[in-house]
Amino acid sequence: MKSVIRSIAPHVTVVDITHEIRPYDIKGGSLTLARSVQYLCPGVVLAVVDPGVGTQRRAVAIEVGDGQSYLVGPDNGLLASAVGMVGGATAAVELTEPEYQLPAPGATFAGRDIFAPAAAHLCAGVPLDALGPRVDVNELVPGLIPLPREEDGALVGEILWVDRYGNCQLNVDPGEIDGWGDRVQLRWTRPEVGVRTARRAGVYEDLASGQVGLVVDSYGLLSVSIPRASAAETLGLEAGDELALVPLTGGDDSDSGGNGAGTTSSVSPVTLGPRRQS
Amino acid sequence: MKSVIRSIAPHVTVVDITHEIRPYDIKGGSLTLARSVQYLCPGVVLAVVDPGVGTQRRAVAIEVGDGQSYLVGPDNGLLASAVGMVGGATAAVELTEPEYQLPAPGATFAGRDIFAPAAAHLCAGVPLDALGPRVDVNELVPGLIPLPREEDGALVGEILWVDRYGNCQLNVDPGEIDGWGDRVQLRWTRPEVGVRTARRAGVYEDLASGQVGLVVDSYGLLSVSIPRASAAETLGLEAGDELALVPLTGGDDSDSGGNGAGTTSSVSPVTLGPRRQS
Amino acid sequence: MKSVIRSIAPHVTVVDITHEIRPYDIKGGSLTLARSVQYLCPGVVLAVVDPGVGTQRRAVAIEVGDGQSYLVGPDNGLLASAVGMVGGATAAVELTEPEYQLPAPGATFAGRDIFAPAAAHLCAGVPLDALGPRVDVNELVPGLIPLPREEDGALVGEILWVDRYGNCQLNVDPGEIDGWGDRVQLRWTRPEVGVRTARRAGVYEDLASGQVGLVVDSYGLLSVSIPRASAAETLGLEAGDELALVPLTGGDDSDSGGNGAGTTSSVSPVTLGPRRQS
Repeated sequence: MKSVIRSIAPHVTVVDITHEIRPYDIKGGSLTLARSVQYLCPGVVLAVVDPGVGTQRRAVAIEVGDGQSYLVGPDNGLLASAVGMVGGATAAVELTEPEYQLPAPGATFAGRDIFAPAAAHLCAGVPLDALGPRVDVNELVPGLIPLPREEDGALVGEILWVDRYGNCQLNVDPGEIDGWGDRVQLRWTRPEVGVRTARRAGVYEDLASGQVGLVVDSYGLLSVSIPRASAAETLGLEAGDELALVPLTGGDDSDSGGNGAGTTSSVSPVTLGPRRQS
Repeated sequence: MKSVIRSIAPHVTVVDITHEIRPYDIKGGSLTLARSVQYLCPGVVLAVVDPGVGTQRRAVAIEVGDGQSYLVGPDNGLLASAVGMVGGATAAVELTEPEYQLPAPGATFAGRDIFAPAAAHLCAGVPLDALGPRVDVNELVPGLIPLPREEDGALVGEILWVDRYGNCQLNVDPGEIDGWGDRVQLRWTRPEVGVRTARRAGVYEDLASGQVGLVVDSYGLLSVSIPRASAAETLGLEAGDELALVPLTGGDDSDSGGNGAGTTSSVSPVTLGPRRQS
Repeated sequence: MKSVIRSIAPHVTVVDITHEIRPYDIKGGSLTLARSVQYLCPGVVLAVVDPGVGTQRRAVAIEVGDGQSYLVGPDNGLLASAVGMVGGATAAVELTEPEYQLPAPGATFAGRDIFAPAAAHLCAGVPLDALGPRVDVNELVPGLIPLPREEDGALVGEILWVDRYGNCQLNVDPGEIDGWGDRVQLRWTRPEVGVRTARRAGVYEDLASGQVGLVVDSYGLLSVSIPRASAAETLGLEAGDELALVPLTGGDDSDSGGNGAGTTSSVSPVTLGPRRQS
C-alpha cells in the first residue's frame, strides 16, 4: 500500500498510526483512530479494518473542515468517531471511479486497490468529486462509542481498550465521579463475579505495588491500572467488558463488601474531544 | 540498517514491505517479495533472509530492466522469483568491494554491514560494477515456486502462505478449475487426513458463517477461507501443506465422500505475473 | 508521537530503531540503544521506556558532541550507555518549559506530550536552554552494563540480550578468551544447572546442526548460538542469566565434565565502542 501511494504521489510522507488492530475489530480500530485524530497533522487519513471487503459496504472518502483533511476507508463505522471529533463531515463520496483505482486481481484487498490509490490521488490534488458520486453525510454508518449508564447507584462503564501494559481504559470521564473521594469500588461479572477497591491516583507510580488504581490516562479518561503489572491479566478483564464503579462511603473499603448505597453524579456522554486549540 | 542507508544516501525514502518473515524462511520471504514486486516503485529493493550469512553464499546486487531497478540481498533464492516477475536479471555483481561496506565487528549482520550500504550506494549513484565483479545471471540461485500437479483426477496444490486472517493461499490459478462448478472438494493428509467441501465465492462475505470457501484472493490465486475465522486453524493447515482439489459432480457434496471421478483441466504453471501495464 | 513531531517540524525524517522493547524494560532499551548508536546519523535520538512517568524522575534532553546530536528521554538510565559511547554529555537540561510541551489530558503519556515535542523543537532549531533549566551532567542517572568477572578459574558473564533467532549475546568481548582454544565449556545454574561444550566459530553455518557455538556477533561480542535453532529455547536461557565460560584443556570436552582448572585472561571492561571513525 505504501508503495502504491508513493507511485501516485511521490512527495507524500506516510505516518503509521498502528498496524496492530486485531482482524475484523472495527470498534478497536475506530477507538484507536479517535484517540489519535486530535494529534494528526492536516492531510489524508487512511484506515482499513474491512471485514466486509468486496460486499455492499461502500468505500468512501470523507471531507472534514471544508477540505482541510480527508478520511478514506470503508463505510462501516470505522471512521465515524474520528470524523465526529474533528467537527463532522462536510462532504463525502463513494469511491467508484475506476480511473483512480488499481485493477484488482481479486476483490479482497481494497486497501491496496481502492483506498490507498484514493488517498494518494487526494494528496496529489485530485478533487474529491472525481473519485465518485456524492454520498449524503447523514447516511454514513455511524460510530458507536458506548456511554456509561447509572444503575442501582453505580456508574456502569465499559472497557474500551486494553493497552500493551494491561491498563484498562474505561469510557468514563473523571468528571463523572467528581466528589466520590479517594477510593472507588469496581465490580464486574465476566468472566467471573469480581469486586475490588481501586484508589484514585494521578500517575501509576503513586500506587503501591499490586494496588489497583483508577488513573486519568493519556486521553483524559479513567483507566484501571496496577503499577508495573497488567491490570487486565490480574483482574481477568478484557476490552468490551462492563465494569461498575460504586462510590465508597466512610469505612466501606473492603474488597468483599460495598453495597452501592452511594449516589452517582448524573451520567453525561463521554467526550473524546480535541484537547488542543487549532 | 535504515540509519546506515540514511547516512550514505540522505535523500532516500525507505518503504517497509514487511519485517515479519519467520527466521530462516527463505521461501516465505521469496513469496512475499514476489507478491509485492509488481506494486513497487522503480528503485532499489533490499531483502535479507539470510541463514547462510558469512558462509560461501554470495551477497549480490541484481539489475533488472536494464538499470531501472536493482535487487540487493543474499544469493540464496530469496530474490529470484521477484526478479523473474519483472523480466529477469540484466546484470548482477557480487558485493565484495570493501569500500562500499561497513567494517564488520562480526560476520553475522550482513544486512547492516554489506546489503544496506550497497543499496544506499546504488541509490546515491554508485555504478553497479563498482560494488564487485560481475556474476553470470544464469548462475544465480533460482527461486522455487512449486507448481500444482494432476493426480488421480485431482489437482494437487500447495499452501504457499497463510495470511494473518488465517486464509490459506494456494499455488493454484482460478483458471485451472474453470468449469468445475460451484463446489470443490478439498483433501489433505497432514497432520491428519481431512476432507471438506468448499464453495467457490467472489468475496469472503458471500460465504455463510463457518462455511469453507475457495476465494480468488488479492494476488489472483485461489485461497481457502472461512469468513471471520481462521481457515488454517479450523482445518489444521499450514504453509507448505499439500492440498488436493477434487471436482464434485451432481449430488456428490458431502464432506465424507467424493470419489474424485471428475476430470481436471490440464495443469499449467502458476503465473504470479504483473497485473498492471507499466 | 510521529504526527506530533511532524506538526512541529515538518521537515524531519523519523527513523524507527525498534518498537519491541518489553514494557518497563529500561535495561533492554538501554542496551538496544547502545548497540544502535554508533550507526545513527547525527540528529536527535528520542527514546521512551518510562515506568516512572509522571513521578519525580526527570525528563531530560542531553547534548553530545558539543551540539552535534541530542538524546531526549527520561532520566532513568535509558540513555546513559548510548551517551557514554558517543563521548559523554556536554550539556543537559530538564524538560520543564510548558511552551514546548503539549497540554496533557493525563500525566501518563510523556512520550507524546513532553518528549516528542522536545525532540521536534530541537530539530526545528529551538536552543537546548529554551527547553528548561540546566542539569549537572554528572548527576544524570548512570546506565548499567554489567561486567564479566573471574571466579574459580571461570569467566562469569551475563546474557545481555536474546535476539529473535534465539542467539544469546553475552557481555564478553572475544579478546577476553583469547588463547582458550576451539572449545569452551558453558555452565549455568538457572533455571537448572546446565553444562555444555561450545565450539568457537566465525559464523553460524560453520557449526554442525544442533551444535552449540560461541560466535562473535554483529556487535563484536560473544554470542551463544545453535545454527537454525534457538539457543535460548534449547538451553533454557534468557536475558539476565549468568553464564560461566570455562576454558577446556586437552581431552576435556565432554558435556558432563570440565573442572575449570584452566586460567582466564584478566577480565577487562566490555567495550561497546564505536566501530567507525566519524
